[in-house]
Amino acid sequence: MANNLSRNPVISTQPGASHADPADREQGSLFQPRFDSTGLVTAVAIDRSTGRLLMLAHMNAEAIARTRETGFAHFWSRSRGCLWMKGETSGHVLRVAEIRVDCDQDAIELRVDAAGPACHTLAPSCFYRRLTADGTLEWVAD
Amino acid sequence: MANNLSRNPVISTQPGASHADPADREQGSLFQPRFDSTGLVTAVAIDRSTGRLLMLAHMNAEAIARTRETGFAHFWSRSRGCLWMKGETSGHVLRVAEIRVDCDQDAIELRVDAAGPACHTLAPSCFYRRLTADGTLEWVAD
Repeated sequence: MANNLSRNPVISTQPGASHADPADREQGSLFQPRFDSTGLVTAVAIDRSTGRLLMLAHMNAEAIARTRETGFAHFWSRSRGCLWMKGETSGHVLRVAEIRVDCDQDAIELRVDAAGPACHTLAPSCFYRRLTADGTLEWVAD
Repeated sequence: MANNLSRNPVISTQPGASHADPADREQGSLFQPRFDSTGLVTAVAIDRSTGRLLMLAHMNAEAIARTRETGFAHFWSRSRGCLWMKGETSGHVLRVAEIRVDCDQDAIELRVDAAGPACHTLAPSCFYRRLTADGTLEWVAD
C-alpha cells in the first residue's frame, strides 16, 4: 500500500479491473483507478489559479504513470489509439501541480498551469461556447 | 438552426450519431452533442462562484433536455440504467446557471450553484483526495 508509484507503478492495467471493495475505494488511501472496459478513466484539467475548466480527455495506466513521472499531462487518444503529451507539438503543455481522484476513482482531476491555450482551436479552454435559451451556441468571453 | 430546443428538443438521440461536419461542430453555433455508442456525453459540474470541480457524470439527450427544462442538473446513471436528478433524494440539487460545450461537442460543462455537498459521501466535491508522491491518497482541505 505504501508503494512508490512514481518509481514502480503498480496501477492495474487490466481493463475493467475491480479488485477493491467499493467502500475502501471511496474512503481509503490507496490509489486504485477504476478503468473502464477499454482501460481508461476520464481526466479533467482545471487551471489551478483561475479554477477554469480547460479540457477533458482520457488516461490509461501508462498516461497516469507518465504524467506522474514527468509532471506534464499525458493522455490516451481514443481516436488515434496512442499515448500523447498535451502540447507535444504546439508547446502548449499542461504542468501538473496536483492530481486528485473522485469518490469511486473513475475520474481524475489534474490541477494544472497551462503554458498556452488549452484547446487545439487556440481558445484558452475547450469550453468556449455556451448554450443559449433559443438552443444555439454563443462564444463566451471569459 | 434556430429551433427552440427548450420547447422542442431536436437533439439527436441516435447513439454515435455524427451527422455534422467536424469543422462546423467546432466552430458553428449549432448545438449537436456527439453522443458515444451508448448515447452519452460526459458532463462536468463546476461551482460557478468558486470554480471548483464538483462532480463528473454522464448525460443522454433526455438528461440534457430535462436539465434545460427544469434548470436542475439531470444525468443518466450507467449503473442503474435510469435518468436521475442530482439531489432528488438528498435535496442537494445543482441549479444550472449555464451550459457550455467543448470543441468537439462530446463533453458538457454545467456551471452550477450547489444546494449542498455535491458528493454522495457528503464531501463538498467528489474530488476530495489528492495523490501524494508516495502513491497514496490524502484528503484535501479545500
